Amino acid sequence: MKLNIAVLPGDGAGPEVTAQALKVLKAIAMEFNHVFNFTEGLVGASAIQKTGIPLPEETLDLCENADAVLFGAIGNTSYDLDPNAKIRPEQGLLGLRKSLGLYANIRPVIAYEELLNKSSLKKRQIKDTNILIYRELTGGIYFGDKVLSDDGNKASDICEYNRFEVERITHLAFKAAQSRKRKLALVDKANVLESSRLWRRVVQELTPQYPDVTVDYLFIDNAAMELIINPRQFDVILTENMFGDILSEEASVIVGSIGLLASASIGEKHAMFEPIHGAYTKGANKGIANPIASILSAAMLLEHFGLDDEAALVREGVDKSIKLHITTPDLNTKYDHITTTKVGDFIEDFINNPDETNLN
Amino acid sequence: MKLNIAVLPGDGAGPEVTAQALKVLKAIAMEFNHVFNFTEGLVGASAIQKTGIPLPEETLDLCENADAVLFGAIGNTSYDLDPNAKIRPEQGLLGLRKSLGLYANIRPVIAYEELLNKSSLKKRQIKDTNILIYRELTGGIYFGDKVLSDDGNKASDICEYNRFEVERITHLAFKAAQSRKRKLALVDKANVLESSRLWRRVVQELTPQYPDVTVDYLFIDNAAMELIINPRQFDVILTENMFGDILSEEASVIVGSIGLLASASIGEKHAMFEPIHGAYTKGANKGIANPIASILSAAMLLEHFGLDDEAALVREGVDKSIKLHITTPDLNTKYDHITTTKVGDFIEDFINNPDETNLN
Ligand SMILES: CC(C)[C@H](C(=O)O)[C@@H](O)C(=O)O
Ligand SMILES: CC(C)[C@H](C(=O)O)[C@@H](O)C(=O)O
Repeated sequence: MKLNIAVLPGDGAGPEVTAQALKVLKAIAMEFNHVFNFTEGLVGASAIQKTGIPLPEETLDLCENADAVLFGAIGNTSYDLDPNAKIRPEQGLLGLRKSLGLYANIRPVIAYEELLNKSSLKKRQIKDTNILIYRELTGGIYFGDKVLSDDGNKASDICEYNRFEVERITHLAFKAAQSRKRKLALVDKANVLESSRLWRRVVQELTPQYPDVTVDYLFIDNAAMELIINPRQFDVILTENMFGDILSEEASVIVGSIGLLASASIGEKHAMFEPIHGAYTKGANKGIANPIASILSAAMLLEHFGLDDEAALVREGVDKSIKLHITTPDLNTKYDHITTTKVGDFIEDFINNPDETNLN
Repeated sequence: MKLNIAVLPGDGAGPEVTAQALKVLKAIAMEFNHVFNFTEGLVGASAIQKTGIPLPEETLDLCENADAVLFGAIGNTSYDLDPNAKIRPEQGLLGLRKSLGLYANIRPVIAYEELLNKSSLKKRQIKDTNILIYRELTGGIYFGDKVLSDDGNKASDICEYNRFEVERITHLAFKAAQSRKRKLALVDKANVLESSRLWRRVVQELTPQYPDVTVDYLFIDNAAMELIINPRQFDVILTENMFGDILSEEASVIVGSIGLLASASIGEKHAMFEPIHGAYTKGANKGIANPIASILSAAMLLEHFGLDDEAALVREGVDKSIKLHITTPDLNTKYDHITTTKVGDFIEDFINNPDETNLN
């Protein structure tokens, strides 16, 4: 297969982890005789620094013409601490999501047997957790009108959804549930929000089309609690943009490190793959950022194009790195000095030579 | 002291748990020679059933003329599952908060030594956790304009804040931090929301007035994770309405049961005290609802009027009930059949006779 992949390393630890995912994709291409062409583009704070804007036209063109986008991370503490900044790295990411129409953000949360003891949660609480979060990604309060009054004393954001936006991701979530444990949980705040009531109405209306799927309804506050006390009750979680942001990052506590969580963002025409962690500015350039989330995002990219054997091999490599404790310090207390690069190298070696790779 | 207390038991398990808090307050009045007058009012689904509306004029009058409100819980699954209902129990609670001007919702999250093993989290992770959440309660997306288009295909909610609303609760939170570990964490989503940037700006501007307090800034997604992996980092958390709703319910996992979390809602003229748990419809009228959150809300009521010795005695009673496993099934695996009423009776007995109360 021939794929043109736009690569946007972004900010902070983004470039380091993306470099490992690239290594892995290159090894896969070699091993399976694919042609993957990679072209880099600027985004986020690093794009602002070089071009003045977080999403240069050139980058958007690149992504629009690519078969897929591999995204690193964006964000920078100096912007976080400046509420007056008009130009912000996040606009790069949000602009991409919107322009590419990436309405469904899919975030798997799977507890690794070997890492159960790394979680803040008790082992018996999380063993066998396997959740797939469907987060709506191009609507809601992220994209509604934002107003700051002229005197700076009043600010507002609109959370808006229309039926079409809710329907398309709801269908995807139902279909995903059908191929899994046939359970769908809608998370909203329908006891307070009009937009949440639209979600609830649409899900109720579509439910008869998926008679084999059981549907649960949770309010976001309750879901934030249930996700911790009983994560195994969930199969597919469907939710709007902001609630999905919160729940998916919270869910990282189950797997032991946010450095493990990958995601796919899917639209009608485009697809982007990115770790759910942010730029991790304070850990950048120290070789300590976990590349597994980025590598697993690359695996999701492969799966998106039906390259299931290829993805399986990547996942095996990740499993093996975890089993052998070839992991960055967020997970590893056994060996010192296992760097971001070393984890990438290990998984690359494994792909080249699945039967012989060990720590060396 | 003479206090007129409006009592709104509400829905589901609200009446059962409120009855226990009343018992406790009556015992305190007796013991300390206070005069507490209690007058009951209707609210929520039970008010809708009897009067057609969730917050009858009479109830509002009662609360406006009372020194304090003791609130049970509202909500009912049949409304939750009907996104088309125009009249909803929650309007009763939200109407009260708004009409009484209860802008600061204060939710303590304290890990009981004896209950550390009840938490989903590992003991060493949560030991000594003591967080005070200041949740803004009369603004944000709860109260902004809500629109449903005529054809029902588009819905929106506005999240709006003005400087005054943010300032007044920020001052309260800073002051609380000064009397504690002098740490304040603002939780927002300032990398995306204009309203969050107003919060961040106001907190930054007021910080110099509280030079002894260290201020941290967290995004809500990150905070939802940090609350679980390192809850001890937090002292006072300040946040807007919706994020406070999510974080405080999530925080219940630390203490082992949402049936333990109390709250005070404070305004310029009024104050209301309520458990943070909801109506718990499926556990209602079975004698299994934990009354401790309601009883601790009564303790917060006493503290609000400077009755610190009285509140301390209530807390001692609660501590003792926990130590002796006189608790409802959410916490208790030692004894069978310890009902809601039995827990209330025990704490009442303790207040009447602090030195001699034991399980009988
Ligand atoms: C960086 C930020 C804008 C982004 C979001 O909130 O969507 C991130 O937290 C994520 O989850 O991808
Ligand atoms: C019942 C509901 C409207 C309420 C809220 O969201 O504020 C509840 O969850 C709470 O936290 O007091």
